Amino acid sequence: MPDTDVDTAVAARGLSIQERLYPNLPCFGCGPGNAKGLQLKSYPLGEGGDGGVTAAFTPWPEHDNGLGYLNGGIIGTVLDCHSAAAVMLEAERRGWPPLPGADLSYVTAGLDVRYLRPAPLHEEVELFATVTESDEPQMTVSIELRFDGKVRAQAEALWKRWRPRT
Amino acid sequence: MPDTDVDTAVAARGLSIQERLYPNLPCFGCGPGNAKGLQLKSYPLGEGGDGGVTAAFTPWPEHDNGLGYLNGGIIGTVLDCHSAAAVMLEAERRGWPPLPGADLSYVTAGLDVRYLRPAPLHEEVELFATVTESDEPQMTVSIELRFDGKVRAQAEALWKRWRPRT
Repeated sequence: MPDTDVDTAVAARGLSIQERLYPNLPCFGCGPGNAKGLQLKSYPLGEGGDGGVTAAFTPWPEHDNGLGYLNGGIIGTVLDCHSAAAVMLEAERRGWPPLPGADLSYVTAGLDVRYLRPAPLHEEVELFATVTESDEPQMTVSIELRFDGKVRAQAEALWKRWRPRT
Repeated sequence: MPDTDVDTAVAARGLSIQERLYPNLPCFGCGPGNAKGLQLKSYPLGEGGDGGVTAAFTPWPEHDNGLGYLNGGIIGTVLDCHSAAAVMLEAERRGWPPLPGADLSYVTAGLDVRYLRPAPLHEEVELFATVTESDEPQMTVSIELRFDGKVRAQAEALWKRWRPRT
């Protein structure tokens, strides 16, 4: 199809939350500006993210947990970074921008992961995140990593307003 | 100095827990057999690990959290893998070997991380882990990541006996 149709098709999905809100971020897990990072791409579900945010992640061959499944640390990394997308989208909607001198409006204060079932190393997995509590000082997010219809890992993330140290 | 003295010097510190107990493991965080992994090396403290286990970790430049500090997902990865060393050493001491068909005796069931202070991206950080509860079906481990005398992140890990699915 002609280029204009390709552009239309791409625009239908549009930029990821990361590409739109922090296109140059060097974060290992989700920074579009980190050429050696995982470059997670998350998208809003529902009207502007009312239904949470979703992402697909394809592990690298070296992301082994030692037993042929997806490594728990990498699972935690994408759960954390995917919750970031939900938090930054919520912050944008509520009008809580980064504070002066900060590149991000919030940072992770806690991440509690439960590993429920092995996740595959060689297939794409899905991520879902929903902001469950939201006040300007802090937010909590519930995140799941799913494969083949089953939740493989579940996490609660606590995010706090980021105040750069001066 | 002659080779024999070099060997003696190396032997003084000896092999890491990972090199001794699972030298070929492909785990991303701590597998000596994963050429593209972090290759964490942990060592017993005190008499055979009575004082817990310790490790030093030097982040890679790409392990950025997006704000110039060490990425929280990578912090979780090394906390998890360092707790593994404490668990596998305890399992060896208690006589709880891997079950038939398993390469490891335990797997992570949960990891609850608190991010207390930023950790540096360009300097070596220290890890400490202690097994706090130990029964054959499961163990819990307390882990800290420290830099410059301050705890930067703290975690509780829950490990369960690994039964390969047949």
